[in-house]
Amino acid sequence: MPRVSPSYTVVFRLLVGEATATSEIASVVAELGAVLTALDIIKSDRDGVTMELMADCYDSEHRRALVAALEDLQDVEVINVSDSTFLAHVGGKLEVHSKIPVKNRRDLSRAYTPGVARVCTAIADEPEKAHIFTIKRNTVAVVSDGSAVLGLGDIGPAAALPVMEGKAILFKEFAGVDAWPVVLDTTDTEEIIKIVKAIAPAYGGINLEDIAAPRCFEIEERLREELDIPVFHDDQHGTAIVVLAALLNALKVVGKRIDEVRIVVSGVGAAGSAIIKLLMAQGATDIVGYGRSGALHAGDVEGMHPARRWLAENTNPRGVTGSLREGVRDADVFIGVSHGNILDPEDIATMAEDAIVFALANPTPEVDPTGAADHAAVVATGRSDYPNQINNVLAFPGLFRGLLDAGVCEINTEVLRVCACAIAGVVSDEERNSRYIIPGVFDERVAPAVAAAVREAVVDLPTRPVPLQEHVNF
Amino acid sequence: MPRVSPSYTVVFRLLVGEATATSEIASVVAELGAVLTALDIIKSDRDGVTMELMADCYDSEHRRALVAALEDLQDVEVINVSDSTFLAHVGGKLEVHSKIPVKNRRDLSRAYTPGVARVCTAIADEPEKAHIFTIKRNTVAVVSDGSAVLGLGDIGPAAALPVMEGKAILFKEFAGVDAWPVVLDTTDTEEIIKIVKAIAPAYGGINLEDIAAPRCFEIEERLREELDIPVFHDDQHGTAIVVLAALLNALKVVGKRIDEVRIVVSGVGAAGSAIIKLLMAQGATDIVGYGRSGALHAGDVEGMHPARRWLAENTNPRGVTGSLREGVRDADVFIGVSHGNILDPEDIATMAEDAIVFALANPTPEVDPTGAADHAAVVATGRSDYPNQINNVLAFPGLFRGLLDAGVCEINTEVLRVCACAIAGVVSDEERNSRYIIPGVFDERVAPAVAAAVREAVVDLPTRPVPLQEHVNF
Repeated sequence: MPRVSPSYTVVFRLLVGEATATSEIASVVAELGAVLTALDIIKSDRDGVTMELMADCYDSEHRRALVAALEDLQDVEVINVSDSTFLAHVGGKLEVHSKIPVKNRRDLSRAYTPGVARVCTAIADEPEKAHIFTIKRNTVAVVSDGSAVLGLGDIGPAAALPVMEGKAILFKEFAGVDAWPVVLDTTDTEEIIKIVKAIAPAYGGINLEDIAAPRCFEIEERLREELDIPVFHDDQHGTAIVVLAALLNALKVVGKRIDEVRIVVSGVGAAGSAIIKLLMAQGATDIVGYGRSGALHAGDVEGMHPARRWLAENTNPRGVTGSLREGVRDADVFIGVSHGNILDPEDIATMAEDAIVFALANPTPEVDPTGAADHAAVVATGRSDYPNQINNVLAFPGLFRGLLDAGVCEINTEVLRVCACAIAGVVSDEERNSRYIIPGVFDERVAPAVAAAVREAVVDLPTRPVPLQEHVNF
Repeated sequence: MPRVSPSYTVVFRLLVGEATATSEIASVVAELGAVLTALDIIKSDRDGVTMELMADCYDSEHRRALVAALEDLQDVEVINVSDSTFLAHVGGKLEVHSKIPVKNRRDLSRAYTPGVARVCTAIADEPEKAHIFTIKRNTVAVVSDGSAVLGLGDIGPAAALPVMEGKAILFKEFAGVDAWPVVLDTTDTEEIIKIVKAIAPAYGGINLEDIAAPRCFEIEERLREELDIPVFHDDQHGTAIVVLAALLNALKVVGKRIDEVRIVVSGVGAAGSAIIKLLMAQGATDIVGYGRSGALHAGDVEGMHPARRWLAENTNPRGVTGSLREGVRDADVFIGVSHGNILDPEDIATMAEDAIVFALANPTPEVDPTGAADHAAVVATGRSDYPNQINNVLAFPGLFRGLLDAGVCEINTEVLRVCACAIAGVVSDEERNSRYIIPGVFDERVAPAVAAAVREAVVDLPTRPVPLQEHVNF
């Protein structure tokens, strides 16, 4: 059953003659299952009234059906149809603002020439000062080649740009981080590494985004080695953080321990492998990963990509083989980051008692969440219209806030792990239940808690101890 | 004689006992030639008062002398000294803002998932739509390798970043263009070309900045060929535009015609060669360019870089040889974009009657402007503390405003020429005189006039005719 969505809000402009009442129009909208959100009269003259009708629809077909039904009304003409989502994107979603005024000569001589020359010289003499006197201090690059965007796949850099702009908005909105989209017209691993290294002087951190596996593994690993600012691939580690956070609370709800449960992970690409590693860092011991050809196990690693081979050799201690459907039997936890509708609710019924099901494929989960809930104690998805949404926005803003604040040069698994614990910790014992294992995306407690946990966790990592005062004064 | 500068504003924090009057402190500042701009009492207690004294100084030595003189006063202790220019740069000068709110689920589903997927798909289907639905529509990359920054030379990308941030501020302030600094940790021509091409999907234009000659010529030329957005090297063409603008008005002041005057250009690097070409496009016929080894002429082109060879073979119709000092004799126009103090006022005396002198080297002009004014009818510099400042900020904001508005795919010499005419035209016949041949940098008439001229000039160039309405509606 499709649902109307606020991401599909349509504005219809209608010319309505005297023969038709507003109530008839509202009835047509309701009959077709759209949700009327506004009905305004824009103009009234001898030809009739011009109205703007705003409604949430399912999709384009639904919109077209609505247009047809409105035109079928006596004396109603649809003169324009526009889409609020497209309108919201016109001209792009980001602006660059100056933090200091440039209204007169005094301002100009300070922000630009000749004053800026002294700041340049100070940085040339002592490169670390770039972290104080430039945007590097608070700016993250959101880097993508557009090769694995949302559920859309390899749509290229231009088409990926609206997503990266959206990501930048979330960085700012949730944690005051300035993020800038860097979409790259190349999918060559070495070129991407070279380019990110070359542009790095302006950035205090690199957030890799929607880059296809297995390319993304090498890009991240090499950049971590070769750059002195933190590098983070959100599709891997952002997802892993939020999954671990949700799992920690779900396990509390069902009264099980992470080192004792059997965990099945469907999908061993970017997200799946990062999830498996982070769960292991938290103490999970019995994890079986499933790719398209079944369980990964140490007995069959011929010709495997090294990243996948590592998983095969370091998980699945019981040497399970076979299909996912077989594998979920008696499992305590199912985590899906793969494809829609690969399991039936009946498969969930074969899991252990008080099963935990995270069906995170978007927009269609691995198993119908409503059906799964008949057999599992806790169900989470990636969608906002079911309880327990696993959403990366809970992790990356606070994580980078903490990294930038602390002047960290690198990132490690322990930092990711404490982020997960911090997110889980936002849900208090009183609040926690099977439908509330993870805070909502607009929960204002999350980003500060994550940032604080990161600042605390990085005390042993290399940082730039740059007391501000010392560098500004003489 | 050094001058105090608002780019060197220093804040002294003083602990002042009862034995010293405020007037004594003010006297010390005045005696040393600094300009007192504020004197505030921050705190008063039994130890005395804590004051903040703000003053404009010449330079660091002057500041130190002031500290010493203040400490020499009875019962005065300098407890802190800070520099307003450095303070203005703390944390960088740019912020990334969202143009649309993301305060609730409805906002999020429109700006980000799931709504954004439809926008991505629309762009993937029709790539030109990136010019409508992404930041590409209004965003310019300010690209530098930090190899030829201001008068500082090759200071590298991190140290160049404050300049590029400043440039971005000016783009926004003067023409509403969103500009983003792209500083590159490479000086390899091919790599720079490859990187700029790779990052181009997010940008509607490329502004190359402070890249050393002759590398800058090939980078610009190749990018113009290989990209479908306008590429502009400000150090070349921005300077050329404003020089031509000033020259047009200066020639009116002295009653001479551009096709009849003898023009000497000192400096045949990025700026000099662009100036020469643009003056030729406007009808100048008798131009002699001077490098370090004297006049460029067609008789001596062995081993020359192609860019310089072109100049030698296409200028200097009278086959002048010899030194600059010899060359300015009887010239009508001297344009210096080279080094400080290479001519004496006496050399200017040998020029033709009603000579025009543009001594644009910064901070020290090619000839002392005050001395030159004894012998020339019109004198201009690159400095803000003499009349007739030749400043690129008059050109690049309006130029890119016009290019982005028109959706232009490329840029040509005619576009540059009309920009110059538009800037010159802002100074009315009534306003124009020997001290006012060019508008001030804060003249609000300039950017709109330049943008309008560009929009008109590009009607014959390839553009993207994308009527907004059509693409947002169905």
